[in-house]
Amino acid sequence: MILLTPGPVQTAPQTRAAMAQDIAPWDNDFRSVYARIRERVLALAGGIPGEHACLPLQGAGHFIVEAAIRSLVPAGGAIIVPMNGAYAERVLLLARGAGRVAHEWPVPDTRGVTAEDVEAAFAAYPEASHFATVYSETGAGIVNRPEVIGPVLRRLGKRMILDAVSAFGALPFSMADNPECDAVVFTSNKCIEGLPGIAFSVVHTAALEQGRAGSWSLDLWEILNIALKSGWGSFRFTPPVQALAAFDVALDLFEAEGGQPARLARYRENMRILYEGARSWGLQPYLDQAEQGPIIVTLHQPAGFSLQGFVDALKARGVLISNFYTTETPTIRIGCIGAVSNAEMRQAVAIMGDVLASSARAA
Amino acid sequence: MILLTPGPVQTAPQTRAAMAQDIAPWDNDFRSVYARIRERVLALAGGIPGEHACLPLQGAGHFIVEAAIRSLVPAGGAIIVPMNGAYAERVLLLARGAGRVAHEWPVPDTRGVTAEDVEAAFAAYPEASHFATVYSETGAGIVNRPEVIGPVLRRLGKRMILDAVSAFGALPFSMADNPECDAVVFTSNKCIEGLPGIAFSVVHTAALEQGRAGSWSLDLWEILNIALKSGWGSFRFTPPVQALAAFDVALDLFEAEGGQPARLARYRENMRILYEGARSWGLQPYLDQAEQGPIIVTLHQPAGFSLQGFVDALKARGVLISNFYTTETPTIRIGCIGAVSNAEMRQAVAIMGDVLASSARAA
Repeated sequence: MILLTPGPVQTAPQTRAAMAQDIAPWDNDFRSVYARIRERVLALAGGIPGEHACLPLQGAGHFIVEAAIRSLVPAGGAIIVPMNGAYAERVLLLARGAGRVAHEWPVPDTRGVTAEDVEAAFAAYPEASHFATVYSETGAGIVNRPEVIGPVLRRLGKRMILDAVSAFGALPFSMADNPECDAVVFTSNKCIEGLPGIAFSVVHTAALEQGRAGSWSLDLWEILNIALKSGWGSFRFTPPVQALAAFDVALDLFEAEGGQPARLARYRENMRILYEGARSWGLQPYLDQAEQGPIIVTLHQPAGFSLQGFVDALKARGVLISNFYTTETPTIRIGCIGAVSNAEMRQAVAIMGDVLASSARAA
Repeated sequence: MILLTPGPVQTAPQTRAAMAQDIAPWDNDFRSVYARIRERVLALAGGIPGEHACLPLQGAGHFIVEAAIRSLVPAGGAIIVPMNGAYAERVLLLARGAGRVAHEWPVPDTRGVTAEDVEAAFAAYPEASHFATVYSETGAGIVNRPEVIGPVLRRLGKRMILDAVSAFGALPFSMADNPECDAVVFTSNKCIEGLPGIAFSVVHTAALEQGRAGSWSLDLWEILNIALKSGWGSFRFTPPVQALAAFDVALDLFEAEGGQPARLARYRENMRILYEGARSWGLQPYLDQAEQGPIIVTLHQPAGFSLQGFVDALKARGVLISNFYTTETPTIRIGCIGAVSNAEMRQAVAIMGDVLASSARAA
């Protein structure tokens, strides 16, 4: 089976093999593995030791997004969320659920945020302290570029929270180059090609404050100061330790491939193969080529199309895609990420073309 | 290696083998597995379909404890926590962190809660709505018995939140027999002998209320009504899907062994072997035999003892125990749970005795 889901993604055999072992997470033998993972993630995020820290959190990406908002924005404080996708909606719900003010800034889901958007949003809501944005929107596939947003925030003296769940490891980012960024967050199971269960933040530690989070579980200050910096130096709570062991292997493979530039190149080529394949089948991509990110390709469903029928027919031929969409109009979402070679993507694209052609003949 | 940690526990080979696969969690093929797991857990907790529901949550046990408190107790509402262990301390911190009032009720960590404790606590704090207690305290090993606490709560018209993280599957419990219980919570990696990553609650659904949690991530109402009951019928957020697949295998093995009574019998015998072994080495158990639960045996450290030295020496001989303790005085914590046979426990106890004897000779 070739997995072309938006994540959890297909992993390498040696990565998932690391899942099948019992591990005592607090034992000294694993303590060093955990410390190494944090160091590797910090370096990968361009973090400066002493200024930034890698703070992992058990669970889904939404938990680390909520934890970052709670830990960085005081209760009643305000953020701005540019609303160009399904995951921006989630950021809004997470912030409001936590008692923070979240202003929506309308941006079409067919393009990334511009410098003008950021300027206008803070002109409308000058009291907001943070711009919380999704780097790669898994809804439509657009990219909100920190290199476009960051300079405006720096000029305005505002801060960034970057939800890089489906971008980190593929799209370039550096905390050192983005001093306006308080936190970048991501999960184990997207572009680093690990298994799900653990999320990561890389945080500007001076921005954290004791007692601000309003949740003991989701408090990044506690993770930094009580779990890691104290004599304890390990997990606060039971971690999904097999997912961490697998993530360590995934990081080895990531480095062996050539790191972020190599991964981005492979995904971009997967995207190009898919995007051109879709046009050759007569399907309409949701995004213009200029806005098309390398993570997800979203296609308009043709008239009379059954998504579940397409998913089932593909699965019978060895290709698995997502059976739902998050855009307002019906779409097909196909992932370009995971341990999927360009050759596998070409094979998958050929199968998708066959399935579409035979269902068109049947209709 | 024989793992005698308090959890994550040793698992069966076929359980951890299920971790080493890529799974698309929202695909129809896994949807039925997830539904089956929820049904099995509901039945195991003595839940009544339509009245109770199994609501899983990604992450550590602390998250599901916080989610249960947030989802059942309004902000500013009060609970009582009997303070007989380290995990009771955590319940207190989780409740207060979430803006709930949490009254401490002193109980020594060497015995379980009595009916008199419950009476006296509510006489002191009559405005409290819930009694939030830890079924099996992983600190010292005592058990707070729902069959002792429950009848008092029923008479007083008060409600129970039961943290059964290290008890569920081994110690008996039934929602049907405990109508005062609003929620019982546990995790995948203790007495069911799965791998860590996912927590479960079985909840009296009428007790949930929309918008009460004050956290979008940790809201059981949302899990029930938006994720499961709506047309969606699946996960809200990316789950640790390998841990779920392994949990399904662990449930098969649990049933094959004879369910909760058989598991309790094996653990109780492990405990007895360990408890008697400890006395034969001249070590003092932390608890009287009458209060000793079947999950954890805690021993006083003898004079001049090095816990890390003991852990390292045991590890060299193939036995792994925890390298920390949570009691106020220095102790040794040894788990009786996990896929550990009575024969393995006897072997481990012989090794522990050897190591203690040779370090006594060396001293």
